[in-house]
Amino acid sequence: MINLGMASLRLCAGLVGRRSGFCARSLRTITGMTVSQIDEEVAKLLELKTQLGGDEGRHQFTLKTAKGTRDYNPKQMAIREKVFNTIISCFKRHGAENIDTPVFELKETLTGKYGEDSKLIYDLKDQGGELLSLRYDLTVPFARYLAMNKVTNIKRYHIAKVYRRDNPAMTRGRYREFYQCDFDIAGQYDPMIPDAECLKIVHEILSELELGDFRIKVNDRRILDGMFAVCGVPDDKFRTICSTVDKLDKMSWEDVRSEMVKEKGLSEEAADQIGQYVSLQGGMDLAERLLQDAKMSQSKQACAGLTDMKQLFSYLQLFQVTDKVVFDLSLARGLDYYTGVIYEAILTQTGPVPVAATQNGAGEKAEEGVSVGSVAGGGRYDGLVGMFDPKGRKVPCVGVSIGIERVFSIMEQKAEASAEKVRTTETQVMVASAQKNLLEERLRLTAELWNAGIKAEVMYKKNPKLLSQLQHCEDSGIPLVAIIGEQELKDGVVKLRTVHSREEIDVSRAELVEEIKRRTSDV
Amino acid sequence: MINLGMASLRLCAGLVGRRSGFCARSLRTITGMTVSQIDEEVAKLLELKTQLGGDEGRHQFTLKTAKGTRDYNPKQMAIREKVFNTIISCFKRHGAENIDTPVFELKETLTGKYGEDSKLIYDLKDQGGELLSLRYDLTVPFARYLAMNKVTNIKRYHIAKVYRRDNPAMTRGRYREFYQCDFDIAGQYDPMIPDAECLKIVHEILSELELGDFRIKVNDRRILDGMFAVCGVPDDKFRTICSTVDKLDKMSWEDVRSEMVKEKGLSEEAADQIGQYVSLQGGMDLAERLLQDAKMSQSKQACAGLTDMKQLFSYLQLFQVTDKVVFDLSLARGLDYYTGVIYEAILTQTGPVPVAATQNGAGEKAEEGVSVGSVAGGGRYDGLVGMFDPKGRKVPCVGVSIGIERVFSIMEQKAEASAEKVRTTETQVMVASAQKNLLEERLRLTAELWNAGIKAEVMYKKNPKLLSQLQHCEDSGIPLVAIIGEQELKDGVVKLRTVHSREEIDVSRAELVEEIKRRTSDV
Repeated sequence: MINLGMASLRLCAGLVGRRSGFCARSLRTITGMTVSQIDEEVAKLLELKTQLGGDEGRHQFTLKTAKGTRDYNPKQMAIREKVFNTIISCFKRHGAENIDTPVFELKETLTGKYGEDSKLIYDLKDQGGELLSLRYDLTVPFARYLAMNKVTNIKRYHIAKVYRRDNPAMTRGRYREFYQCDFDIAGQYDPMIPDAECLKIVHEILSELELGDFRIKVNDRRILDGMFAVCGVPDDKFRTICSTVDKLDKMSWEDVRSEMVKEKGLSEEAADQIGQYVSLQGGMDLAERLLQDAKMSQSKQACAGLTDMKQLFSYLQLFQVTDKVVFDLSLARGLDYYTGVIYEAILTQTGPVPVAATQNGAGEKAEEGVSVGSVAGGGRYDGLVGMFDPKGRKVPCVGVSIGIERVFSIMEQKAEASAEKVRTTETQVMVASAQKNLLEERLRLTAELWNAGIKAEVMYKKNPKLLSQLQHCEDSGIPLVAIIGEQELKDGVVKLRTVHSREEIDVSRAELVEEIKRRTSDV
Repeated sequence: MINLGMASLRLCAGLVGRRSGFCARSLRTITGMTVSQIDEEVAKLLELKTQLGGDEGRHQFTLKTAKGTRDYNPKQMAIREKVFNTIISCFKRHGAENIDTPVFELKETLTGKYGEDSKLIYDLKDQGGELLSLRYDLTVPFARYLAMNKVTNIKRYHIAKVYRRDNPAMTRGRYREFYQCDFDIAGQYDPMIPDAECLKIVHEILSELELGDFRIKVNDRRILDGMFAVCGVPDDKFRTICSTVDKLDKMSWEDVRSEMVKEKGLSEEAADQIGQYVSLQGGMDLAERLLQDAKMSQSKQACAGLTDMKQLFSYLQLFQVTDKVVFDLSLARGLDYYTGVIYEAILTQTGPVPVAATQNGAGEKAEEGVSVGSVAGGGRYDGLVGMFDPKGRKVPCVGVSIGIERVFSIMEQKAEASAEKVRTTETQVMVASAQKNLLEERLRLTAELWNAGIKAEVMYKKNPKLLSQLQHCEDSGIPLVAIIGEQELKDGVVKLRTVHSREEIDVSRAELVEEIKRRTSDV
């Protein structure tokens, strides 16, 4: 219940007591209050809060990142770079261009695009000016970009962080700030060709990342809607029933059924009919069967979706990816904007259980045979761009988003388990000396190497011990050491030491760069 | 003047009139108001605003990005990728590791770090839970990272967007969302060695980006503070006078002097003495001269700074970068956290005047000989990590931030002016056909090429015209076309066409991949 009146009354009374002339300016009564007047009110209250907060908050400093977010340390970044390179290579192989959009959008740009998930959007504080929100995905900003720039066809990728005020489960790679790697094809084309390429891309990326076996579930919003119609779901309940079906990957059918009937008010008969359909899985054969299905075939929408599904599978056969793709009628995906094909990729192998997860107990336990969850998803959204175009001009789009936080988690665990050390720098050579008073000579040689494009490090100490210089090479995997001393300087040579074998040879200063390049050409 | 009382009073009265029982809950009077009570008030007002806004705002949808932000289109992204590659190569050449931090931090993490610039911080809306702000730079999050993870030495780079609610001047590359490319060295080392490396890095990057001539101004907070002390500035005015001196790159000395005297209450004598010092520029010689200066030499702090400045220049000589570095006593830099050496790089050549700027008139005009502004800056901040450590343990740090938005602007203008076309994809070959009904064969061949690692595109049409397929290659710079027809399929060959020369040869299907690789090895 809202309790504004008394609080503001007292607040006013108190302030009047403290400052004279406070209630002087005349304002209209509430029935005439405008947004900007409320803004002023809010600003005043917040200023008051700042004054109070300055005293109350002083001693509660906490050293942490915001809830649901994390830093990436150098080792994690090295792994992340490798994953990104694999994904970007794939996107480029498919001829995609790259775009970027701001991290925040006008709040109204995101309004009405995410259905029940809209509550998870991060808003920025109203500090005067526009109302802004952090992007929730990369799809809506992409559609806004297309409409704003009147782009009618493009194949682009976009890799960036998105933000959701969800319940984080960080041990399972679920964060409030996380990367999405999106690939989308916009344009008016013949049916299912771009859609098939998106699935081919998911197949390539998940294969190349070597994350173990995976499956790509495919369905179609038109098949879902047709199914809801023939099962007797009222039109205005399609979206909310769809959201409930979407929970089938986390909840049992019994619980989903119960939510439909008890919370959403669906009839038991309708729920049971849906239950029969959503248990179906198959390939092109299933699409054919359902086209003959007495009930399904009554829905024009379903028939259109099923015909396209057959077409899609024929292209997937040409792309040789049908081994991993399943037509699954239980796949729903919650977002409002999908209009056609939808898909989601899951890893089917049980990953190693993260240590933190097992410590947290049963709730987080990854059980034998249970999938570690969705790692990619997407679909067709032919209406979204039209929502932004002043004249409602549509640009058909289909795309896929790789959710790589879980991929990172798995790769990190693999790296932990592996004997091979992850290098966090690419340094080829350490410039060192065993004797004192050679800092200037070390710096001079290091600069020579930098200028020749060699990746080189030098210790920031006047007289470091040789052992500590060598130890740094061992620790960070630097393969070579260029050692100088009085004698080497006199002879115009450098002692080049291979860290791994401890072998040392004298190399003339003039040949040093070439020798380092030759020895590290595979690094 | 705050005018809270009457507004809230009326607001209350109005609401009471509309809803019964509205003012029922009892609250303490203002003298006892707590932050959480104010929060409640604010939430209620904002809810009311939403109710109103829902009606008022409906028809005002605007298709734009948030003020001061922009999208990057594929061409801009291609340029951006090139610039980033140059910068990252340099950072890696110097042995830096990479880290990443979240885009927002706890609000208190940023509090008290930016002096007068704190008002430019973007706050997130209080949606329950922690109070958050978007990062203002990468330095404070870095210091928080070091303290939180108890890292005492690291050389890292971090490339990410930062956020400032500043007045945007987008034609000059000044945005509210912009990239920083930061390189920092943390650790207890011998004086000025890491500091010199930071300047070497700025020199390398600005040289490699070929942006024209540049200069790197260097100063030291200790020299500034010593100068303020011997010129008679009261201790508590150091920071604010420093902020004013910082404006010397945008304002004349007369205006700066006037701000010191009239706004900040400094004596005219003190201001004039400062005026004499801040006109000085030089190199190691100037540092030596000031060490002998009757007044300067009275300040211990200034002497420490000047001695280090001499040392710094000796290292810069070894790195062969003194041609671009100037010891400049007018360089101040506004941020609170610097404790030692500070620096800033400016481009000294007049760039081409952006079209939008000349259209905007005089205010934006880049005049002959006027610098296009700062492109890099940084310095030493030995106290910042200690502000986060519960026990106040210090980790000395020095770093540099490359502000690349201006660099992008310049590179974009160069690309516009150049005859050479910027490619936005890396596609090597287009799979095409001149005949109808070959979609399936085109898809099959394209998948073969993808699987062999070739970057290939195919048109998403059942029967595209050969001309439109070739036109796409011309438009996007694809060098090769693999053409198939009935005859080629029968013969087991592909007609490989070079777009540039229009030359066509038949290549056996088995040799196609190798042939494409051979012909595009320089792409």
